[in-house]
Amino acid sequence: MPVYKAPTRDTKFVVNELIGLDRFTNLPGFANATRDLTDAVIDEGGRFVSEVVAPLNQIGDREGCTRHADGSVTTPTGFKHAYRQYVEGGWATLSAPEAFGGQGLPHAIGFVMEEYLASANQAFAMYPGLANGAISAILSKGSAEQQATYLPKMVTGEWLGTMNLTEPHCGTDLGLLRTRAEPQADGSYAVTGTKIFISAGDHDLSDNIIHLVLAKTPGAPESSKGISLFIVPKFLVNADGSLGARNAVSVGSIENKMGIHGNATCVMNYDAATGFLVGEECKGLAAMFIMMNAARLGVGMQGLAQAEAAYQNAVIYAQERRQGRAPTGPAEPQHKADPLFVHPDVRRMLMDAKTFTEGMRALSLWGGFQVDLSHHAATEEERIAADDVISLMTPVIKGYGTDMGYKIATDMQQIWGGHGYIAENGMEQFVRDARIAMIYEGANGVQAMDLCGRKLAQHGGRAIQRLFALVDDEVAAAGTELAAVAGPLSKANGELKAATMWFMHNAMTDPNALGAGAYAYMTLTGVVSLGLMWLKMARVAAAALDAGSDEAAFYHAKLTCARHWATRFAPQAGALRREVEAGADTVMALPIEAFATA
Amino acid sequence: MPVYKAPTRDTKFVVNELIGLDRFTNLPGFANATRDLTDAVIDEGGRFVSEVVAPLNQIGDREGCTRHADGSVTTPTGFKHAYRQYVEGGWATLSAPEAFGGQGLPHAIGFVMEEYLASANQAFAMYPGLANGAISAILSKGSAEQQATYLPKMVTGEWLGTMNLTEPHCGTDLGLLRTRAEPQADGSYAVTGTKIFISAGDHDLSDNIIHLVLAKTPGAPESSKGISLFIVPKFLVNADGSLGARNAVSVGSIENKMGIHGNATCVMNYDAATGFLVGEECKGLAAMFIMMNAARLGVGMQGLAQAEAAYQNAVIYAQERRQGRAPTGPAEPQHKADPLFVHPDVRRMLMDAKTFTEGMRALSLWGGFQVDLSHHAATEEERIAADDVISLMTPVIKGYGTDMGYKIATDMQQIWGGHGYIAENGMEQFVRDARIAMIYEGANGVQAMDLCGRKLAQHGGRAIQRLFALVDDEVAAAGTELAAVAGPLSKANGELKAATMWFMHNAMTDPNALGAGAYAYMTLTGVVSLGLMWLKMARVAAAALDAGSDEAAFYHAKLTCARHWATRFAPQAGALRREVEAGADTVMALPIEAFATA
Repeated sequence: MPVYKAPTRDTKFVVNELIGLDRFTNLPGFANATRDLTDAVIDEGGRFVSEVVAPLNQIGDREGCTRHADGSVTTPTGFKHAYRQYVEGGWATLSAPEAFGGQGLPHAIGFVMEEYLASANQAFAMYPGLANGAISAILSKGSAEQQATYLPKMVTGEWLGTMNLTEPHCGTDLGLLRTRAEPQADGSYAVTGTKIFISAGDHDLSDNIIHLVLAKTPGAPESSKGISLFIVPKFLVNADGSLGARNAVSVGSIENKMGIHGNATCVMNYDAATGFLVGEECKGLAAMFIMMNAARLGVGMQGLAQAEAAYQNAVIYAQERRQGRAPTGPAEPQHKADPLFVHPDVRRMLMDAKTFTEGMRALSLWGGFQVDLSHHAATEEERIAADDVISLMTPVIKGYGTDMGYKIATDMQQIWGGHGYIAENGMEQFVRDARIAMIYEGANGVQAMDLCGRKLAQHGGRAIQRLFALVDDEVAAAGTELAAVAGPLSKANGELKAATMWFMHNAMTDPNALGAGAYAYMTLTGVVSLGLMWLKMARVAAAALDAGSDEAAFYHAKLTCARHWATRFAPQAGALRREVEAGADTVMALPIEAFATA
Repeated sequence: MPVYKAPTRDTKFVVNELIGLDRFTNLPGFANATRDLTDAVIDEGGRFVSEVVAPLNQIGDREGCTRHADGSVTTPTGFKHAYRQYVEGGWATLSAPEAFGGQGLPHAIGFVMEEYLASANQAFAMYPGLANGAISAILSKGSAEQQATYLPKMVTGEWLGTMNLTEPHCGTDLGLLRTRAEPQADGSYAVTGTKIFISAGDHDLSDNIIHLVLAKTPGAPESSKGISLFIVPKFLVNADGSLGARNAVSVGSIENKMGIHGNATCVMNYDAATGFLVGEECKGLAAMFIMMNAARLGVGMQGLAQAEAAYQNAVIYAQERRQGRAPTGPAEPQHKADPLFVHPDVRRMLMDAKTFTEGMRALSLWGGFQVDLSHHAATEEERIAADDVISLMTPVIKGYGTDMGYKIATDMQQIWGGHGYIAENGMEQFVRDARIAMIYEGANGVQAMDLCGRKLAQHGGRAIQRLFALVDDEVAAAGTELAAVAGPLSKANGELKAATMWFMHNAMTDPNALGAGAYAYMTLTGVVSLGLMWLKMARVAAAALDAGSDEAAFYHAKLTCARHWATRFAPQAGALRREVEAGADTVMALPIEAFATA
C-alpha cells in the first residue's frame, strides 16, 4: 500500500523562512499566526492527515461511493469516521473568520492543510474543499442573515457545501444555463433543473449540505449576464437553526469516472427546490468567480499534492528495488544488483519531481500569502499589488500546477516500471486522480485564456509588469554565488517579456493569435514563476549556510534543486516563446473536413 | 461509445506515395506487394478492424479477463468470435513467410494491420502481437524441427504465443533470473519458476499457446550471459502435429491493472514444465532481443494507435459540442454557441494530434520498410544501411512514439472536458491503455539507454551519421517553397549533431552524463525523425499539387501539418539539446537521504 508522510520540514521552510509569516503578526488576519502556533498546526495537521486520512485513499478508490435505492449516498468505508475526526480536530476552521467560529489564520496556513489532505486522499479532500468555495461565496455575497444561518456550521465542517455550475449541455459556457429559478411569494425561489459533475453532491459525512446553484430568473438575459446564484440547502434550516424539511433536490446518479472514486460526483436534480438568492439577480457570475478562484488555487495544489504523494512512493521504490548496476560500476557489490536510485535516468525523474514539488509548494503558499496580503496588508497600494499578483497567478498555479502534477505523477509511476501499472501498488491511482485537476474548475485551456485574454490586459498590463519586476528585483538581489540560477531566470523572464510584447503587437490584429499562443504562454509563466521561487529559496538557503546552519544538507539540497531548475526547466522558456510567436497560422488553417478520417 | 475508422487514405499515402512500395516488387520479399493487393489489404483490413474489433474495446475494458476455479482463463465477451474471424480472414499471416503458410508481404504492410488493430482495441491486438515476437524468435533461432512443429499453426494464428521474461524481482535486469531449466534424458528440459506480467499468458482464443521462456540451465553464469530460451507449449505437440498432454504451466492469477483490461496479464507458474531449448544454452539473450525488437516496434505503434483513436473521437466532439464563441465573432450565429472547433486552443491540440499521428504513421511504416530492406535490399551495402537505421530508430519509435501517444491521448481527452473523465465516453480508456506502452517491452528510460549507450556507439556511430545524412539530403532536396519546413529541420538536426558531439566529448569522462542526458536525447531524435518524415511528406504533397491532383485539400493539409511541425515541434530541439548538455551535475548531486520526507 502506498504511504504518505506530510513534508512538514519543507512546509516550515516556506512558511517560516521564505515567507516569514510571523513577521506579519502586527497585521489583522495574521495576528494569530505566531510561529509556535503555525508550527504546531503544520506538525499536528500533517500527523492527522498521514495517520487518519491517507490510509483510506486506496480503499476509497476501490469502493467508490454508492447511491442506494432510496436515493441516499454513502462514502467509502472509513470516510465518515475520518471526517468526524477532521471536524472534531478543528481542521476545517483554520483560515475561516473568527466571527463565524474560525481560527482566523492566514490562507497560507489553510493552504498547507489543503495540500496535505489532497496528497493523502484527493477524493476525501474534495468534500471540505468544495465547501470552502461555497463558504467564500456566502462570506462575500451573502446577506447577514444568510451568513448567520449557514456559516457557523459550515465553518466547523458540520455542514458541507457544493458548487452547482455545470449542466449536460454547458460547462465553460455558462450563458447556456437552463436551470430556472422562479420567485415565490415568500421571497424564496423555486429552482428547477439538472446539474452534472457535482463533486460531493451528496454523501453521509455531514448533517446538511448547502448547495450553491447557478440558475436563471424569468426574463434574465440569454448570456452569462443573466445568471443568479442561489443557496439550496439539502435540509431547510428552521429559524432556531435546527434542520427542517428535506428540500426537493435529489441525486440522479453517481458518475463512473477515471479516478477520484471516493468522491461522489453526482447528477443533481432540482425539482422546484427552495432556493435563496445570494446577492442580486443576474449578478451570479461575480459570486461564481469568488467560489471559483478559491477553488482554482486549491485545484492547483492538487497537482502538487498528487505529484508529492507519487514522489514519496517512487523514492522508496528507487531505494528498495534492485536492478542493474550504476554506470560508474557496482555501488553495492555485496548485492547482486544496485538500487534503482543509482541510475541517472531514475535520478533525473526524482530531481524533476523534487524541484517541481518544492517549487510549487513555495509558489502555492506564497500565493496564499498574497491572498492574505490582498486583504490585510498595511497600505492600499500593497493590497492592490498583492491582488494583482494573485489574480495573475491563479490560472498559472491551476494550469501549470496541474499539468506538471500529472506529468510528475506519471514519471513517478514510470520509476515503478511494470509494477507501477498494477492497481494494488497505488501508483496508477495517483495518475488517474491527478488527471481530473487539469479538467475541473475550468479546463487548463480556459485557465490559459483567463490568463492571456483577461488578466494580462487588466489595468494596462499592470499585473504582468509586477511579475516582471518581482523577478528582476530578485535577480538583482542575487549575489554572484547564485548567478547559475539568476542568469537563466533572467533569460527566462526575458522570453516571457518578449512573448508578452508579441501578444501586444499581434493579438489585436489577429484575435486567434492570442488563443493559439495562450497555452504556451501559461506554461512559460509557470516556468518563470517556479524559477522566481527557486531563486528566492536559493537566497534563503545560501544565507542559512553562511550563518552556519546545522541543517547544511537540507540547504545544500535547496541550492542543487535551484540549479536543477536552471538547467532542466529554464531551457523550455525559449521554445515556449517561439510557440507563442508561431501564432495562429497553422493552428487555424485547416477546415473541419481536413480532420475527418478518410 | 467511441468510434474508430481506419485511416486508410493516409496509410495509402505513406505506402504508395511516400515509400512507393510497389517500386520494389523486383526484390524478394516485396514481390507480392503489388499496389492492387496492398490497397485491398489496407481497405479490407481497415474495414474488418473497424467493424469487428473496435466495437469490443469498451466491453473488454469493462469486463476484463477471468481466471476460473479450474485455472482456465476466458477473454471478454466477443473476443473469441472476433479472433476466429481474424484467423479465418488470414489477417495473422500478412507478413509471415510463405514457407510456413504466410502471405510473404513486406513488414510495412504487416505494420499497417498492427496499427489498425491497436487503435481499435489494444488489449485484443496484444494477443496476436505477442505471438509475432514468439514467431520471430523461432524463425530466427529455432531448429528446423521446431519451425516445422510450431510455425505453421502460429503463422495462421490457430496457436498463439507469449514472451516470458519478467520475474517478481527482475524486469530490466535479466541477469537476476531465477527460473531454472534442468536437462532431461530425452533432450528436453524441466522448466521451473514464476514469471509475472505475461501478456496473453492464457486465454480461450487459440487451441494452444506457445510460451517462449527465459530460464537458466545448471551452472550457467549469474548474468544475462547465462540465459537460455525455451519453447514451453501449453499443450505438448504429438509427432503427428495433434495436441498431446497438458504441460505443467498454469496461471497463478491475473493482474488488476490500470488499463488493457481485455488482455490477460498473468502470473505464470512453471512446475517442471517440459521445455525445448531454442538455439544453444546461454545464448538466450540474442534470441530475446529478436523477440523484443519486433515487439518494440509494435509497441511504438500502440502509442500512435491510441493517439489516433482518441483523436478521431476528439474531432467528432469538437464538431458536435457547442460552447462559447469564436474569438473572431460568432461562427454560427444561428446557434446559441459555436462548436468547440472554433477555439484556437482546441484547434492547437487537434493540429498537434494530426501532426503527430500522421508523422508517426509515416515513421513507423517507413521503419517497417527499413526492416524489409535490411533483409531484401539488392546490395549488402543497402541491407546494412537499412539495418543501421532501423536499429537506431527502434528505441526512438518505441520511446518517443509512446510518450507522445500518451500525451496526445491526454490532450484529446482534454478536449472532451469533464465528459472526458467519465468512463462511458471512452476517452479515459485511451489514456489508461496508452500508459502501458511507455512501460512494457523495456521502459522508455531503457529505450533511451539502448539508443545512447548502445546504438550510438555501434560501428563508430555509423547509424546516427546515416540519420544526419538522411536529414541533410532531404533538406538539400527541398525547394524554396519548402524552406519553412527545411530550415527548422536543418536547425533541429544541428541541435542533434551538437548533442551527439557533446556525448562524444563527455560520456567517456563521466559515465553518468550519458544516462542523465539519454532521455532528452531520445526525445530530440524523435523530434528530428518526425521532421524528416514531414519534410519528405511535404515534398510528395507539393509534387502532387504541382501535378494538379484532384485531392488538393488532402495535400494542402499535409503542407500545413509540415509547417505545424516546424513551428510547434521543432522549437523543442534547442531546449532538449541544452538538457543533454546539462549533464549529470544536478541530477546525481544529492544522496538518497535528500529525497526522504522530513
